[in-house]
Amino acid sequence: MKKSIFYHAGCPVCVSAEHDIITLIGAENVEIVHLGNDRNRIEEAEKAGLKSVPALVTPTGNVLHINFGASMTEVKG
Amino acid sequence: MKKSIFYHAGCPVCVSAEHDIITLIGAENVEIVHLGNDRNRIEEAEKAGLKSVPALVTPTGNVLHINFGASMTEVKG
Repeated sequence: MKKSIFYHAGCPVCVSAEHDIITLIGAENVEIVHLGNDRNRIEEAEKAGLKSVPALVTPTGNVLHINFGASMTEVKG
Repeated sequence: MKKSIFYHAGCPVCVSAEHDIITLIGAENVEIVHLGNDRNRIEEAEKAGLKSVPALVTPTGNVLHINFGASMTEVKG
């Protein structure tokens, strides 16, 4: 299976959700991207449809926004 | 691993998220609860911390609100 991508920005809500997602779907099935550190991936995340973090983009391209940590506007700063 | 519980209410956002969750974590690892049909489980869902559907309660008791279909107030009607 193609990997999912979990985008976050280091906020407490993000870190908590990251642990849950890794436990549920397995670390080997998900790439973790910290948009605060990897700012050159913000554009890719927005193109995928991210409106807020944390969010999981599935292998089929669906975006699952999980709880609410920060909007993309806040991530871009 | 203890099962996760996916609560939904039949809305389009819920159904889409249900398919994604089942694909990601496996049908055998998640119990699906339709709160519109199983209305006697609404109280349990609220006690677990659900504020909206669809949402996934993990085996450790964390609540992951996924996208937004309907608030619990709307589910109760």
